[in-house]
Amino acid sequence: MFEALLEKVRFNNRDLVAAIAQQYDTNEVLMMAWMNADSIEETLVTGRVCYYSRSRHGLWRKGETSGQVQRLVDIRLDCDGDTLLLLVDQTGVACHTGRRSCFYRAVRGSELVELSKPSVDPKTLYGEKHG
Amino acid sequence: MFEALLEKVRFNNRDLVAAIAQQYDTNEVLMMAWMNADSIEETLVTGRVCYYSRSRHGLWRKGETSGQVQRLVDIRLDCDGDTLLLLVDQTGVACHTGRRSCFYRAVRGSELVELSKPSVDPKTLYGEKHG
Repeated sequence: MFEALLEKVRFNNRDLVAAIAQQYDTNEVLMMAWMNADSIEETLVTGRVCYYSRSRHGLWRKGETSGQVQRLVDIRLDCDGDTLLLLVDQTGVACHTGRRSCFYRAVRGSELVELSKPSVDPKTLYGEKHG
Repeated sequence: MFEALLEKVRFNNRDLVAAIAQQYDTNEVLMMAWMNADSIEETLVTGRVCYYSRSRHGLWRKGETSGQVQRLVDIRLDCDGDTLLLLVDQTGVACHTGRRSCFYRAVRGSELVELSKPSVDPKTLYGEKHG
Protein backbone atom coordinates (compact mmCIF):
# COMPACT_ATOMS: atom_id res chain seq x y z
CA MET A 1 0.00 0.00 0.00
CA PHE A 2 2.68 2.48 0.99
CA GLU A 3 5.78 1.08 -0.71
CA ALA A 4 4.95 2.76 -4.04
CA LEU A 5 4.67 6.11 -2.29
CA LEU A 6 7.69 5.70 -0.01
CA GLU A 7 10.01 4.82 -2.85
CA LYS A 8 9.14 8.09 -4.62
CA VAL A 9 9.42 10.37 -1.56
CA ARG A 10 12.66 12.31 -1.38
CA PHE A 11 13.31 12.58 2.34
CA ASN A 12 15.64 15.37 3.49
CA ASN A 13 18.89 14.87 5.37
CA ARG A 14 16.88 14.41 8.58
CA ASP A 15 14.79 11.66 6.90
CA LEU A 16 11.74 13.93 6.87
CA VAL A 17 9.35 15.21 4.21
CA ALA A 18 7.18 18.33 4.46
CA ALA A 19 3.43 17.67 4.73
CA ILE A 20 0.70 20.24 4.11
CA ALA A 21 -2.73 19.47 5.59
CA GLN A 22 -5.72 20.77 3.64
CA GLN A 23 -9.40 20.34 4.59
CA TYR A 24 -10.67 18.08 1.81
CA ASP A 25 -14.02 19.78 1.11
CA THR A 26 -13.37 23.48 1.69
CA ASN A 27 -9.74 23.38 0.47
CA GLU A 28 -8.66 25.46 3.47
CA VAL A 29 -4.96 25.03 4.25
CA LEU A 30 -4.83 24.03 7.92
CA MET A 31 -1.17 23.52 8.81
CA MET A 32 2.25 22.35 7.70
CA ALA A 33 4.27 19.73 9.56
CA TRP A 34 6.77 16.95 8.87
CA MET A 35 6.55 13.20 8.36
CA ASN A 36 9.05 10.37 8.36
CA ALA A 37 8.59 6.96 6.76
CA ASP A 38 7.05 5.48 9.91
CA SER A 39 4.50 8.27 10.26
CA ILE A 40 3.50 7.96 6.59
CA GLU A 41 3.05 4.23 7.02
CA GLU A 42 0.99 4.64 10.19
CA THR A 43 -1.16 7.31 8.54
CA LEU A 44 -1.92 5.09 5.55
CA VAL A 45 -2.62 2.02 7.70
CA THR A 46 -4.83 3.72 10.29
CA GLY A 47 -6.41 6.47 8.17
CA ARG A 48 -5.60 8.95 10.93
CA VAL A 49 -2.84 11.46 10.33
CA CYS A 50 0.39 10.94 12.24
CA TYR A 51 3.28 13.41 11.86
CA TYR A 52 6.84 13.38 13.13
CA SER A 53 7.50 15.91 15.89
CA ARG A 54 10.88 17.55 15.41
CA SER A 55 10.79 18.97 18.95
CA ARG A 56 9.77 15.74 20.66
CA HIS A 57 11.77 13.51 18.28
CA GLY A 58 8.99 11.02 17.84
CA LEU A 59 5.71 10.18 16.20
CA TRP A 60 3.04 12.80 16.73
CA ARG A 61 -0.44 11.35 16.46
CA LYS A 62 -2.38 14.50 15.67
CA GLY A 63 -5.18 14.98 18.17
CA GLU A 64 -3.92 12.36 20.63
CA THR A 65 -4.06 14.86 23.50
CA SER A 66 -6.53 17.41 22.16
CA GLY A 67 -8.97 15.12 20.37
CA GLN A 68 -8.61 17.31 17.28
CA VAL A 69 -7.81 14.43 14.93
CA GLN A 70 -7.35 14.46 11.17
CA ARG A 71 -8.93 11.68 9.14
CA LEU A 72 -6.99 11.05 5.95
CA VAL A 73 -9.03 11.42 2.77
CA ASP A 74 -6.20 11.42 0.21
CA ILE A 75 -2.45 11.81 0.04
CA ARG A 76 -0.63 13.54 -2.83
CA LEU A 77 3.05 13.80 -3.70
CA ASP A 78 4.54 16.74 -5.56
CA CYS A 79 6.60 16.66 -8.74
CA ASP A 80 10.00 16.53 -7.07
CA GLY A 81 8.90 14.26 -4.25
CA ASP A 82 9.85 16.48 -1.33
CA THR A 83 6.38 17.61 -0.21
CA LEU A 84 3.17 15.75 0.60
CA LEU A 85 -0.31 17.24 0.43
CA LEU A 86 -2.68 15.55 2.87
CA LEU A 87 -6.38 15.99 2.16
CA VAL A 88 -7.94 15.55 5.58
CA ASP A 89 -11.18 15.86 7.48
CA GLN A 90 -10.22 17.93 10.50
CA THR A 91 -12.15 17.45 13.73
CA GLY A 92 -12.44 20.83 15.43
CA VAL A 93 -9.34 22.97 15.11
CA ALA A 94 -5.93 22.24 13.60
CA CYS A 95 -3.96 24.91 15.45
CA HIS A 96 -2.70 24.56 19.02
CA THR A 97 -3.85 28.15 19.61
CA GLY A 98 -7.45 26.99 19.22
CA ARG A 99 -7.90 28.32 15.70
CA ARG A 100 -9.11 26.28 12.76
CA SER A 101 -5.99 27.04 10.68
CA CYS A 102 -2.43 27.84 11.76
CA PHE A 103 -2.19 30.53 9.06
CA TYR A 104 -4.07 33.27 10.91
CA ARG A 105 -1.55 36.12 10.68
CA ALA A 106 -1.32 38.42 7.67
CA VAL A 107 0.44 41.59 6.59
CA ARG A 108 -1.84 44.66 6.63
CA GLY A 109 -0.02 47.88 5.85
CA SER A 110 3.08 47.92 8.06
CA GLU A 111 1.66 45.48 10.58
CA LEU A 112 1.17 41.78 11.08
CA VAL A 113 -2.42 41.30 12.20
CA GLU A 114 -4.46 38.33 13.42
CA LEU A 115 -7.27 37.42 11.04
CA SER A 116 -9.14 35.20 13.47
CA LYS A 117 -9.63 34.64 17.18
CA PRO A 118 -9.40 31.20 18.82
CA SER A 119 -12.67 29.33 18.50
CA VAL A 120 -11.68 26.97 21.31
CA ASP A 121 -9.74 27.79 24.48
CA PRO A 122 -6.40 25.91 24.30
CA LYS A 123 -6.84 25.09 28.01
CA THR A 124 -9.88 23.04 27.03
CA LEU A 125 -7.81 21.16 24.47
CA TYR A 126 -4.62 20.57 26.41
CA GLY A 127 -5.48 21.21 30.06
CA GLU A 128 -4.31 24.01 32.33
CA LYS A 129 -0.63 23.10 32.26
CA HIS A 130 -0.34 24.08 28.61
CA GLY A 131 -2.56 27.12 29.00
CA MET B 1 5.91 47.04 5.04
CA PHE B 2 7.87 43.82 5.49
CA GLU B 3 9.74 44.44 8.78
CA ALA B 4 6.73 43.37 10.89
CA LEU B 5 6.56 40.10 8.99
CA LEU B 6 10.30 39.43 8.83
CA GLU B 7 10.77 39.86 12.55
CA LYS B 8 8.17 37.15 13.23
CA VAL B 9 9.44 34.63 10.66
CA ARG B 10 11.53 31.84 12.15
CA PHE B 11 14.04 31.05 9.42
CA ASN B 12 15.70 27.64 9.54
CA ASN B 13 19.43 27.02 9.84
CA ARG B 14 19.79 27.74 6.11
CA ASP B 15 18.00 31.12 6.56
CA LEU B 16 14.95 29.81 4.69
CA VAL B 17 11.25 29.51 5.43
CA ALA B 18 8.80 27.13 3.74
CA ALA B 19 6.22 28.79 1.49
CA ILE B 20 3.01 27.17 0.24
CA ALA B 21 1.39 28.74 -2.83
CA GLN B 22 -2.41 28.53 -3.00
CA GLN B 23 -4.62 29.88 -5.78
CA TYR B 24 -6.52 32.65 -3.99
CA ASP B 25 -10.00 32.05 -5.45
CA THR B 26 -10.23 28.27 -5.89
CA ASN B 27 -8.04 27.45 -2.84
CA GLU B 28 -6.11 24.89 -4.91
CA VAL B 29 -2.67 24.18 -3.45
CA LEU B 30 -0.25 24.76 -6.31
CA MET B 31 3.26 24.15 -4.97
CA MET B 32 5.64 24.38 -2.04
CA ALA B 33 8.99 26.16 -2.21
CA TRP B 34 11.35 28.16 -0.01
CA MET B 35 11.94 31.85 0.62
CA ASN B 36 14.71 33.83 2.28
CA ALA B 37 14.40 37.37 3.65
CA ASP B 38 15.40 38.94 0.30
CA SER B 39 12.81 36.97 -1.65
CA ILE B 40 10.07 37.87 0.85
CA GLU B 41 11.02 41.53 0.57
CA GLU B 42 11.07 41.43 -3.24
CA THR B 43 7.71 39.63 -3.30
CA LEU B 44 6.08 42.24 -1.07
CA VAL B 45 7.60 45.17 -2.97
CA THR B 46 6.85 43.94 -6.49
CA GLY B 47 3.65 41.95 -5.86
CA ARG B 48 5.12 39.10 -7.90
CA VAL B 49 6.23 35.98 -6.08
CA CYS B 50 9.96 35.40 -5.80
CA TYR B 51 11.29 32.26 -4.10
CA TYR B 52 14.79 31.17 -3.15
CA SER B 53 16.12 28.32 -5.28
CA ARG B 54 18.04 25.84 -3.15
CA SER B 55 19.53 24.18 -6.24
CA ARG B 56 20.61 27.41 -7.93
CA HIS B 57 21.47 29.18 -4.66
CA GLY B 58 19.77 32.39 -5.63
CA LEU B 59 16.53 34.28 -6.04
CA TRP B 60 13.99 32.46 -8.21
CA ARG B 61 11.54 34.86 -9.79
CA LYS B 62 8.69 32.47 -10.49
CA GLY B 63 7.78 32.58 -14.16
CA GLU B 64 10.87 34.52 -15.25
CA THR B 65 11.65 31.91 -17.93
CA SER B 66 8.27 30.29 -18.43
CA GLY B 67 6.00 33.34 -18.12
CA GLN B 68 3.93 31.42 -15.56
CA VAL B 69 4.08 34.15 -12.92
CA GLN B 70 2.32 34.33 -9.57
CA ARG B 71 0.76 37.61 -8.51
CA LEU B 72 0.67 37.96 -4.75
CA VAL B 73 -2.81 38.45 -3.30
CA ASP B 74 -2.05 37.89 0.39
CA ILE B 75 0.68 36.47 2.59
CA ARG B 76 0.00 34.57 5.82
CA LEU B 77 2.31 33.35 8.57
CA ASP B 78 1.59 30.29 10.68
CA CYS B 79 1.44 30.05 14.47
CA ASP B 80 5.06 29.06 15.00
CA GLY B 81 6.43 31.28 12.26
CA ASP B 82 8.17 28.64 10.18
CA THR B 83 5.77 28.45 7.22
CA LEU B 84 4.26 31.07 4.91
CA LEU B 85 1.03 30.65 2.98
CA LEU B 86 1.02 32.72 -0.21
CA LEU B 87 -2.37 33.41 -1.72
CA VAL B 88 -1.57 33.97 -5.37
CA ASP B 89 -3.11 34.41 -8.77
CA GLN B 90 -1.27 31.88 -10.91
CA THR B 91 -0.84 32.61 -14.61
CA GLY B 92 -1.08 29.31 -16.49
CA VAL B 93 0.55 26.43 -14.67
CA ALA B 94 2.57 26.29 -11.46
CA CYS B 95 4.38 23.02 -12.13
CA HIS B 96 7.46 22.67 -14.33
CA THR B 97 5.87 19.52 -15.79
CA GLY B 98 3.17 21.68 -17.35
CA ARG B 99 0.48 20.86 -14.82
CA ARG B 100 -1.53 23.40 -12.89
CA SER B 101 -0.46 21.97 -9.50
CA CYS B 102 2.69 20.12 -8.48
CA PHE B 103 0.61 17.71 -6.35
CA TYR B 104 -0.60 15.47 -9.17
CA ARG B 105 0.42 12.04 -7.85
CA ALA B 106 -1.74 10.06 -5.43
CA VAL B 107 -1.86 6.61 -3.85
CA ARG B 108 -4.49 4.33 -5.42
CA GLY B 109 -4.41 0.81 -4.05
CA SER B 110 -0.78 -0.29 -4.17
CA GLU B 111 0.22 2.22 -6.83
CA LEU B 112 1.17 5.85 -7.15
CA VAL B 113 -0.88 7.23 -10.04
CA GLU B 114 -0.95 10.52 -11.91
CA LEU B 115 -4.21 12.40 -11.43
CA SER B 116 -3.68 14.83 -14.30
CA LYS B 117 -1.85 15.19 -17.58
CA PRO B 118 0.23 18.26 -18.47
CA SER B 119 -1.96 21.00 -19.88
CA VAL B 120 1.06 22.71 -21.44
CA ASP B 121 4.10 21.11 -23.05
CA PRO B 122 7.13 21.95 -20.86
CA LYS B 123 9.09 22.52 -24.10
CA THR B 124 6.79 25.44 -24.78
CA LEU B 125 7.49 26.87 -21.36
CA TYR B 126 11.24 26.37 -21.14
CA GLY B 127 12.44 25.63 -24.65
CA GLU B 128 13.82 22.40 -26.06
CA LYS B 129 16.88 22.20 -23.83
CA HIS B 130 14.74 21.58 -20.76
CA GLY B 131 12.37 19.24 -22.57
